[in-house]
Amino acid sequence: MLENVDLTKSISKEEYDNLIEDLTIQIGDLQRKAWKMDIPVVIVFEGWHASGMTEIINRFLLTLNPMGFDLYTTGKPCYQEEQKPLIWRFWTKIPQKGSIAIFDRSWYRRAILEHNGKGKVDKNMSKCLNGLTYFERQLTDAGYLLIKFFLHISKEEQEKRYRNLKKEGIPLFIAEEEEQEYLNDYNKYLPLIEGILEKTDRASAPWTIVESEDRNFATVKVLAKVIESMKNKMQDVENDIKTTQNNHVENCIIPNIDSSILEKVDLNKSLTYKEYKKEKKICQKKIEELQYELFKNRIPLIVVFEGWDASGKGGGIRRLAQKLNPRLYRVIPVGVPSMNELARHYLWRFYNEIPEAGHIGIYDRSWYGRVLVERVEDLCNEHEWKRAYREINEFEEILSNYGTIIIKFWMHMDKQEQLKRFKQRENTSYKQWKITPDDWRNREKWNLYLSAADEMLQKTSTSWAPWTIVESNDKYYARIKIFHTVIERIEEELKQRGIQ
Amino acid sequence: MLENVDLTKSISKEEYDNLIEDLTIQIGDLQRKAWKMDIPVVIVFEGWHASGMTEIINRFLLTLNPMGFDLYTTGKPCYQEEQKPLIWRFWTKIPQKGSIAIFDRSWYRRAILEHNGKGKVDKNMSKCLNGLTYFERQLTDAGYLLIKFFLHISKEEQEKRYRNLKKEGIPLFIAEEEEQEYLNDYNKYLPLIEGILEKTDRASAPWTIVESEDRNFATVKVLAKVIESMKNKMQDVENDIKTTQNNHVENCIIPNIDSSILEKVDLNKSLTYKEYKKEKKICQKKIEELQYELFKNRIPLIVVFEGWDASGKGGGIRRLAQKLNPRLYRVIPVGVPSMNELARHYLWRFYNEIPEAGHIGIYDRSWYGRVLVERVEDLCNEHEWKRAYREINEFEEILSNYGTIIIKFWMHMDKQEQLKRFKQRENTSYKQWKITPDDWRNREKWNLYLSAADEMLQKTSTSWAPWTIVESNDKYYARIKIFHTVIERIEEELKQRGIQ
Repeated sequence: MLENVDLTKSISKEEYDNLIEDLTIQIGDLQRKAWKMDIPVVIVFEGWHASGMTEIINRFLLTLNPMGFDLYTTGKPCYQEEQKPLIWRFWTKIPQKGSIAIFDRSWYRRAILEHNGKGKVDKNMSKCLNGLTYFERQLTDAGYLLIKFFLHISKEEQEKRYRNLKKEGIPLFIAEEEEQEYLNDYNKYLPLIEGILEKTDRASAPWTIVESEDRNFATVKVLAKVIESMKNKMQDVENDIKTTQNNHVENCIIPNIDSSILEKVDLNKSLTYKEYKKEKKICQKKIEELQYELFKNRIPLIVVFEGWDASGKGGGIRRLAQKLNPRLYRVIPVGVPSMNELARHYLWRFYNEIPEAGHIGIYDRSWYGRVLVERVEDLCNEHEWKRAYREINEFEEILSNYGTIIIKFWMHMDKQEQLKRFKQRENTSYKQWKITPDDWRNREKWNLYLSAADEMLQKTSTSWAPWTIVESNDKYYARIKIFHTVIERIEEELKQRGIQ
Repeated sequence: MLENVDLTKSISKEEYDNLIEDLTIQIGDLQRKAWKMDIPVVIVFEGWHASGMTEIINRFLLTLNPMGFDLYTTGKPCYQEEQKPLIWRFWTKIPQKGSIAIFDRSWYRRAILEHNGKGKVDKNMSKCLNGLTYFERQLTDAGYLLIKFFLHISKEEQEKRYRNLKKEGIPLFIAEEEEQEYLNDYNKYLPLIEGILEKTDRASAPWTIVESEDRNFATVKVLAKVIESMKNKMQDVENDIKTTQNNHVENCIIPNIDSSILEKVDLNKSLTYKEYKKEKKICQKKIEELQYELFKNRIPLIVVFEGWDASGKGGGIRRLAQKLNPRLYRVIPVGVPSMNELARHYLWRFYNEIPEAGHIGIYDRSWYGRVLVERVEDLCNEHEWKRAYREINEFEEILSNYGTIIIKFWMHMDKQEQLKRFKQRENTSYKQWKITPDDWRNREKWNLYLSAADEMLQKTSTSWAPWTIVESNDKYYARIKIFHTVIERIEEELKQRGIQ
């Protein structure tokens, strides 16, 4: 994509002055319109060192109302960021509806610096690019406008600019040490960058190559492209074009509607209190030891609890956590999303909360709400929850590629047992707060939840994040099954990774 | 405070089992009640190594609904945290109304590790403790409940526990290297800790020394103390006791109501366009250079713009930022607070946004909203805005102690000039969005805003953060005055610090 670019393009100072005022006013108008239309915008700047990125970005920022944008300068990750997958740093920064997030260098620069130094798109880099593609597609599917610029100059021009900077005694303050090679070896990075641009140029998130040898031309091109993209996006929204949303649904595995996984579950399994107590003690001791293995080896663990109201999620979590070191685990209860969360992609809140390397995140409900309660209660539309199976699998794949162990429990019980427990809660003073009118309402939709759960179990049981159905009519049996599953899975993973 | 503690206190396993269930139910009830009453709770755990903090905290957590609390484990600061004052890490973590934030080690441990190794409360440590005291007082003044525990064991007991841990082969995973001395030199830290506990034991945030040689006793004492404190707090809230709120108002400087600073301002000052253009160019070049000096020396800069609607804050900011490196500055527009922000101390949102070392934060309106718009429009009560002068001075003192340069502009104009500009905005198509009914409403309250501004200028002009009044009837004059003030102040500070 960089080969046939005409780098001689330029405009005069006079033309520039004439154009810039008009472009500035247009962008101001569009920013306000995007705000009203709830359109979130992500703008990525990539390019060569000394391509003038700083000045071009600053000129662009001056066209904007600072109330509605954030600029993120991407540099070396801090310690906390190193404990999470690369894309986490960017997921947590996506703009809310109507806002603009501008990335001064982005996930691409980081991918280049952190995942490849070999000068071509190899297997490792391809895997990394897959994760980036998931990210971008999930954003555009959800209505985000994504604009990507690559500021291009020739090797000769770059060298000339380096010489001038040196002559004027201006140090390259911002360039980190890790970027020295990228700074100096244009020819090595050219084919790599070409490969990346080609692989990540998609219809809904295309690259714009900006001829940047003439700074005025480059600035005008950036502003004009932003205007064009925003106008097109607004047109699409007004026309209510749903094509991107439809695109991927067909990719999902088609569920076998006739066969219900949950129908075949044997809910009669049980344990005596004596068996339970003895086994619990052994398991808690074991898990206490295993948590330190995870910590020592910097392996994050995610344990998801989903299941019927009153199926014993809370009790299971409490027993699992009882002997754990509170510095190493956190229980994350997932409830109604906040305004802030509703204003962004639904996975945003979950990216914000993933455990760092070596830590344990225990989820009391989770991102599966999208295909359970949000589906059943019409809190999102059909496109959204159908798309979610794939999005969730990709989310878990990214976590798993980073090294995270993912264990997911569906706590299953029958309707009679639930009724018994609801009544028990109503009759025990210190348990009354646990039972709300919502619980009774949900119960009326038992069959809708049942088929949603069934479809979820089929579509999101992957090799990297399989579901375990926990027979929960008997609490003792359920808790011990949870313990055993967690222990076995961790031990297996440690073994596979050559640790134990 | 640690000397006469009876460390032999203990209870039997039987007593413990009897008590714990009841305490658990009580805490669960109180947590729900605090949620309903909107009471935010901060609980601090400090203590010796091997005092059993981990187990005691975990036992306490298990009494709580995870929906309503956050546990923060305090360790070595990450890079980002090192670029801000110590207390920033904790300000950003204060709970929202109704929630509980638990600190597993806190600002005290960090103060000990980062500000002192000499074994006593010296000048440096005293200054640091002042900042911590500001933090705690500001929270309790605003209705936060603050509970502080110190888990105490003797040197002999500590040594015994170390021996046992060693015998069982349990490594001290979590203790960072920087803590090794604290870990091993009990006698050196005893007088320092005693000094800190004494200096920071206040009526509204007292310390509870927990005799921790017997773990059951310690656990029960912690739970019982939490219950007692929460009950007392709820009683206070129900009785609507405002004493703490009244306490500090009298400490403010009494304003001289008769003399108005703003009345004496000469608004006739002006510059020609030619003078302005020439001077702007020189100043922008100078500021461009100075920003790199700030960056190299890791000095943060805050520039606050306050002033009348249409007084030219936006224009001034734009010219100031025009030639700056966008990687080094950020414009922070301050508008109506979000739900999240309203649920916490009003300074929380500003702590979240302070620039990191070497960076520039330019504020389009600021924390002064508390004593301007919030005061005039009755968005907070009288106690709150009266208290705010002192809180703001303390906030700026903490930033200044960290090394931040603080420059504050009040853009002053008269009522006639404002009217002219409002009309101009209404008549220019691309400026119409800048004028809203709010602006006309505010204008009607001109005199109320005038006296609020006057009082603010008197009470919050400190040696570390003085106000500059900018005569803004003439835009050119105003912009150049802003430039000159910023340049002079930075140069002066660099000189004082021996840099230029």
